[in-house]
Amino acid sequence: MTTYKNQLLPNEKVFRDPVHNYIHVQHQVILDLIDSKEFQRLRRIKQLGTSSFTFHGAEHSRFSHSLGVYEITRRICDLFQRNYSIDKIGLGGWDDQERLITLCAALLHDVGHGPYSHTFEHIFQTNHEALTVQIICSPNTEIYQILNKVAVGFPEKVASVIQKTYPNQQVIQMISSQIDADRMDYLLRDAYFTGTEYGTFDLTRILRVIRPYDGGIAFGMNGMHAVEDYIVGRYQMYMQVYFHPTSRGMEVILEHLLQRARECYQNNPEIFLRNSPLLVPFLEGNFTIDDYLRLDDGVLNTYFILWQDEADVLLNDLAYRFLNRKPLKSCRFEENNQTALLQHMQHLVETVGYNPNYYTAVHSSFDLPYDFYRPESNKHRTQIELQEKDGSLVELSKVSQLVKALAGEGQGDHRFYFPKEMVDLSLQDNYDLFGETYKHFASHIHNGALIN
Amino acid sequence: MTTYKNQLLPNEKVFRDPVHNYIHVQHQVILDLIDSKEFQRLRRIKQLGTSSFTFHGAEHSRFSHSLGVYEITRRICDLFQRNYSIDKIGLGGWDDQERLITLCAALLHDVGHGPYSHTFEHIFQTNHEALTVQIICSPNTEIYQILNKVAVGFPEKVASVIQKTYPNQQVIQMISSQIDADRMDYLLRDAYFTGTEYGTFDLTRILRVIRPYDGGIAFGMNGMHAVEDYIVGRYQMYMQVYFHPTSRGMEVILEHLLQRARECYQNNPEIFLRNSPLLVPFLEGNFTIDDYLRLDDGVLNTYFILWQDEADVLLNDLAYRFLNRKPLKSCRFEENNQTALLQHMQHLVETVGYNPNYYTAVHSSFDLPYDFYRPESNKHRTQIELQEKDGSLVELSKVSQLVKALAGEGQGDHRFYFPKEMVDLSLQDNYDLFGETYKHFASHIHNGALIN
Amino acid sequence: MTTYKNQLLPNEKVFRDPVHNYIHVQHQVILDLIDSKEFQRLRRIKQLGTSSFTFHGAEHSRFSHSLGVYEITRRICDLFQRNYSIDKIGLGGWDDQERLITLCAALLHDVGHGPYSHTFEHIFQTNHEALTVQIICSPNTEIYQILNKVAVGFPEKVASVIQKTYPNQQVIQMISSQIDADRMDYLLRDAYFTGTEYGTFDLTRILRVIRPYDGGIAFGMNGMHAVEDYIVGRYQMYMQVYFHPTSRGMEVILEHLLQRARECYQNNPEIFLRNSPLLVPFLEGNFTIDDYLRLDDGVLNTYFILWQDEADVLLNDLAYRFLNRKPLKSCRFEENNQTALLQHMQHLVETVGYNPNYYTAVHSSFDLPYDFYRPESNKHRTQIELQEKDGSLVELSKVSQLVKALAGEGQGDHRFYFPKEMVDLSLQDNYDLFGETYKHFASHIHNGALIN
Amino acid sequence: MTTYKNQLLPNEKVFRDPVHNYIHVQHQVILDLIDSKEFQRLRRIKQLGTSSFTFHGAEHSRFSHSLGVYEITRRICDLFQRNYSIDKIGLGGWDDQERLITLCAALLHDVGHGPYSHTFEHIFQTNHEALTVQIICSPNTEIYQILNKVAVGFPEKVASVIQKTYPNQQVIQMISSQIDADRMDYLLRDAYFTGTEYGTFDLTRILRVIRPYDGGIAFGMNGMHAVEDYIVGRYQMYMQVYFHPTSRGMEVILEHLLQRARECYQNNPEIFLRNSPLLVPFLEGNFTIDDYLRLDDGVLNTYFILWQDEADVLLNDLAYRFLNRKPLKSCRFEENNQTALLQHMQHLVETVGYNPNYYTAVHSSFDLPYDFYRPESNKHRTQIELQEKDGSLVELSKVSQLVKALAGEGQGDHRFYFPKEMVDLSLQDNYDLFGETYKHFASHIHNGALIN
Repeated sequence: MTTYKNQLLPNEKVFRDPVHNYIHVQHQVILDLIDSKEFQRLRRIKQLGTSSFTFHGAEHSRFSHSLGVYEITRRICDLFQRNYSIDKIGLGGWDDQERLITLCAALLHDVGHGPYSHTFEHIFQTNHEALTVQIICSPNTEIYQILNKVAVGFPEKVASVIQKTYPNQQVIQMISSQIDADRMDYLLRDAYFTGTEYGTFDLTRILRVIRPYDGGIAFGMNGMHAVEDYIVGRYQMYMQVYFHPTSRGMEVILEHLLQRARECYQNNPEIFLRNSPLLVPFLEGNFTIDDYLRLDDGVLNTYFILWQDEADVLLNDLAYRFLNRKPLKSCRFEENNQTALLQHMQHLVETVGYNPNYYTAVHSSFDLPYDFYRPESNKHRTQIELQEKDGSLVELSKVSQLVKALAGEGQGDHRFYFPKEMVDLSLQDNYDLFGETYKHFASHIHNGALIN
Repeated sequence: MTTYKNQLLPNEKVFRDPVHNYIHVQHQVILDLIDSKEFQRLRRIKQLGTSSFTFHGAEHSRFSHSLGVYEITRRICDLFQRNYSIDKIGLGGWDDQERLITLCAALLHDVGHGPYSHTFEHIFQTNHEALTVQIICSPNTEIYQILNKVAVGFPEKVASVIQKTYPNQQVIQMISSQIDADRMDYLLRDAYFTGTEYGTFDLTRILRVIRPYDGGIAFGMNGMHAVEDYIVGRYQMYMQVYFHPTSRGMEVILEHLLQRARECYQNNPEIFLRNSPLLVPFLEGNFTIDDYLRLDDGVLNTYFILWQDEADVLLNDLAYRFLNRKPLKSCRFEENNQTALLQHMQHLVETVGYNPNYYTAVHSSFDLPYDFYRPESNKHRTQIELQEKDGSLVELSKVSQLVKALAGEGQGDHRFYFPKEMVDLSLQDNYDLFGETYKHFASHIHNGALIN
Repeated sequence: MTTYKNQLLPNEKVFRDPVHNYIHVQHQVILDLIDSKEFQRLRRIKQLGTSSFTFHGAEHSRFSHSLGVYEITRRICDLFQRNYSIDKIGLGGWDDQERLITLCAALLHDVGHGPYSHTFEHIFQTNHEALTVQIICSPNTEIYQILNKVAVGFPEKVASVIQKTYPNQQVIQMISSQIDADRMDYLLRDAYFTGTEYGTFDLTRILRVIRPYDGGIAFGMNGMHAVEDYIVGRYQMYMQVYFHPTSRGMEVILEHLLQRARECYQNNPEIFLRNSPLLVPFLEGNFTIDDYLRLDDGVLNTYFILWQDEADVLLNDLAYRFLNRKPLKSCRFEENNQTALLQHMQHLVETVGYNPNYYTAVHSSFDLPYDFYRPESNKHRTQIELQEKDGSLVELSKVSQLVKALAGEGQGDHRFYFPKEMVDLSLQDNYDLFGETYKHFASHIHNGALIN
Repeated sequence: MTTYKNQLLPNEKVFRDPVHNYIHVQHQVILDLIDSKEFQRLRRIKQLGTSSFTFHGAEHSRFSHSLGVYEITRRICDLFQRNYSIDKIGLGGWDDQERLITLCAALLHDVGHGPYSHTFEHIFQTNHEALTVQIICSPNTEIYQILNKVAVGFPEKVASVIQKTYPNQQVIQMISSQIDADRMDYLLRDAYFTGTEYGTFDLTRILRVIRPYDGGIAFGMNGMHAVEDYIVGRYQMYMQVYFHPTSRGMEVILEHLLQRARECYQNNPEIFLRNSPLLVPFLEGNFTIDDYLRLDDGVLNTYFILWQDEADVLLNDLAYRFLNRKPLKSCRFEENNQTALLQHMQHLVETVGYNPNYYTAVHSSFDLPYDFYRPESNKHRTQIELQEKDGSLVELSKVSQLVKALAGEGQGDHRFYFPKEMVDLSLQDNYDLFGETYKHFASHIHNGALIN
């Protein structure tokens, strides 16, 4: 008898996808998970948050990214089973019994994301990884019920892949390592929807050289340049898309807006009880999974629309700025040497009438494009291994000068944010009063950087 | 002195766009319009409404489409000015004094769209074209104020282009005709974001052959096949994307949901006053421009999330179905011959426990891919003219067999919608009671069509 | 023991291909065929002959097209084996024992092509289909020897697929029907290398709906629009690329050049014995397979370079015009009504000093984009069948208005070719003598067509 | 009166191009140059020589590359004229009087290339740069005559741009520097036709940030990452396409074949006088421009076809191997440490019956992806300059860690080439005699490298 676990759809179901052409679904379990309400909710959460304010095409959802991660994982499983199955190559080979758990983990790895995740988490102390695990393991979610039909304990196993405690390293690394299905999908997808070409790398070629070994996932040495190109593509996407100063300028606005809402709630909860009920549990700091699953980008935006009419000037101005894309401007600064100057600049902003707590910020964005294993580090990374013809492994940065140049060093910048009005003459209504202040402020910014 | 009308940006500003690579903004007026709150609101309204339930990539907004229409129009103006300016070719040539009004009309032509436009308009008797004109001409919108700075009366002129009463036919046809910047952008954009290839046609080639003449816009005869290809691309997009049965199955749900909300409001307005305040003016049938401009997709979805907890079974079930993508199923039927059978089918649906007013529907989607001028028709269309070397004009379907095959005939189908449960055994909990009814129902559907 | 027939490569070998990304070779037999000298020769023969004079990117070879046809066929075999194997669906299913013969026939179907095939065949009465069969079946070709190692009689079986006498219709139609791997590859490949977008259709979607049935190959009804789009793409490629007037103007030059060479050879064979030895057997009308296999585009061009120095004015002028791209100009004409006028026009060409046999031509290019079965026709075509859910078949033009518009009617035009000098003032050195003749000539051409 | 220099075509003429969509020709001079026989000859010379043996799509010609370089240059001139004309920004701005000379130099910069340039030059001591200058400056070429019609001395001026002695550095650097129109076109074009994605970089973005300054060409600082991406793309193309071991294995065959022909000619010139007349001047070491202009890839290949029938075993075997793609195999080695071992390996090859002078080779390929100015170097390179907002310049590797990692260091490898038979058991007919030699040979190759 066909168990639910093995139940294949009579006809494969496909989803048309601009990045992978088709997403192929073959298992009833996977289709049921996609149809669950917790997963459908991801349609209403943008993959890139405030980046769409800079790249207007980037309105794609976490739903489409999750399908993409699933699809890349499925293709890797197919390749592994065809070329490197444990039956064929023995120890270090792929055990296709792991397929379903791998696919489920790939599909669900982001299911705990909420609206504007990064900022929301920061203000409300939520954690999307912990929430992913909770959604998978809470008996009253549809996802739990589907997974539990596969086998008792199966939800927890899927969660353990995401938590990286599952015993099979191949399964874990396929979904979470420095070159995994998650990163491969988001680089390609974000490049497609932003309309940039930086993030494109040769997925077909990567898939030709990926292979299992007893310690996890490796890449054939003949694919070194393809892997190298992926690392460089990743670096370029961070530099040019993810860390774009304008998107971060919107993120700062959002952060200050949510922070202000929390402050207002403490003084005057009625407003929010009346017009932002779904946010109240978070303003209270006491929420359930069910509360969390009701949030999405549209809910927050709806509340921001309503807050524009509230009496609190900061709340309504920040809401207006967020909804209508009025980002803060910025300049680079050096982390250690310019602390005093930053305070001075904030002071100048205050002088012309802005509360610097809400209208200035320092914002640092750094990414480590690649790192090899460092025993002394407390955040271990699985290094990328290349496999020679004789089976021996070589760590990537040993053979790639390009990767070596990027390895181990955070790439990014520190920026100081302030109101556009500070440097845009046409917006300075009070120039006759504060002309000197404005000039002084501007004199400290040169070639886009803060100067002493 | 540079007037606002002629004020060019010191450096052209660009928006990265996946379809046109870059959107180039050169006028201060255009940048100000883009930054207006009425225009920014289009970021929160999906271009394709329920199509994203079928094509998950199609999450692009009316904001990006509007920029795209602007950009194509801008490129046409550049071409016209370079090759066919009135100074150069005289009568029938392009007068570049028309550029700014044309660009403004292109950018703003869809600014009156609201959330899920088609359905919303149907239920609440709004009209996005009339609203576009109102937004442009209402003295307290930011858009009006920007346009009025150009010249007194300028907002009304821009509106008249959209209303097709502006005297210069070239300006009108560039934005609204059977092959205009609007259609060209949406076909390419929707093809890109859905990930289909049907709608692609050769924009560069069309732009090489487009030209002004004294009656409007024509295309060089050597571009006949490019124009033909555009018509076929359009036909394919309608058949395969816009008329997709699943998207329409979701549209039916949405329509019934909003209709149910209106009914509930009449009996019990308190619910909506409490949890759907922004929708109340529409439920009341009495709304202002300002009310309208507060709506977007997220606002409606937020209310649907809340309605899932309301007592009315129809309201909460339909809201659940919409949010979690549970479309009605469908089959084709013939318009005139199957009326009795349709009633019978609805009756069978009712038998097993569904209210047919909410869980069945007939839905017809037809498009006229192309039509030539018909004096007898009351909805005139500007036919597509091809221009011979000697300047004479030939109507497109006279020289293209393909277009002739599509001209004048609506393409599409009539479908009958019903709950998936009617034909999916695994969902029929009450099969022991109604087994015969289900079988009877299924026996009337063959090869996807209703049969007697 | 592994026989040669079943011998798989230890590691699949791939060829990077711009159209299909990778060509995957799994059988030793296929790799050996690709490495044979008769197949390698296809690298030196352009796929599109004189089209590269119009579309300079179209320099791709028959080698790359042949690999592409092989690859599409391989993918279809994989799909058939996975979803419709005879073991699974019984009668009408795919028998994977046919795979190798199908792949060999796909790879070799064009191996008999020579340089500038169409023109060469016309002048020297060769036939590339007959030559394909001969190359496969001649015991001293490398190809024969490879195929004969598979099994005695195997070369003849492969040839019978190309000759359409092989018993299994699925095998034949995969390679030769109105929608086969051959056409699918050349449309996509020629579109890619010319840089046009007309020929693109959605191969992935076609491959999703293609299926075997007991009479050959059919397509699922849900893929109707994809098949329709392929027919339209094909029509567009013929109209815009294959029938381009300039390419045909070069073809006319080539044809007259080869014809002149044959005439010269009859009077004065020594020239050719000395400087064009590889062409002599064809000028003699008596050649072997081995002679044929020594020809390629470069050989003919080399001889044309040498002929530029020969005394015969026609031979050297035509060679110069061909090598240096001096096409004849042309205008459309109507087949039946303009015979007398054509003679008159030729007479005018003669008047100003050109031999009309070499410097004028009529050239007709017509294609039947699609046809259904016509018992009365002596050139039967396998019609395209769509398969309903219940297994019944419907002929394509019955359900597609677009295809119906193209079915059964040749598309193309008749053109009259003449020297550019006839209509280009700047080239008319003898205008004072023949000014009236030139004016008279020009007066009969209007909007690109011959007029009375 | 319109002079030839200023004569614009009544209608711009376009060439469809897969890489740049359209090549736009506006000047009569440019059209005439394209139509010249010396330029048309470039159609018959492959851009990438033996690379098409590895990447079968790479059959594109130097003709298409030359058009591409012209087109990029034309676009840069347009941008410079629109945004940075000398009239507008003064000193350091672009003088549009330089347009025609720049376009001519761009179009003609490769006109001196012959068949299989690199190898041919090496064997016959020709030099394509010197020949380019000669073709431009020789009074009896069509190109000279066209240029001289522009103005007396104009051909020499165009040549001086190519020789880098022209006074305007902007003109020179547009065509020849580390990031010029030449490199930009070939990277994109070669990536397109090989079907790889490595070489793609964002041309539109580079064109947005390129600008003139008084010392030549610079790039806006905000385009740093686009320039960086170009450098990395270039590096990847060299590593993966231009230096591909198989293409180099074919190049070695070609080099030995031409070398053998020269040796044979010295002993027995009659053969070549009879069957390779166009090559004789080069075998003699005494050729004219006219001799050179008669050569192309097809001419050489035609001679190779004939040489297959000659008595000299080396000549005919090497010709067979080249025509039928039988490359030598190879392994990496270390330049300084393995000289003795290389000799030993050659000896082993000789032992089993191959003349090591013709069947082995060492081949080193290195490229310097980028270098900054080094006063001590005798081959100066124009470093890439980025321009800050205040106009100051910063050298690229100062701000890009990636470029710094590649700067100043040659990237590539040394390879030892030998007959495939040495390591392929299935080809070793004399294994019983030389089994130990073969094993010994193979034992010195491990993971693709020579080991002691």
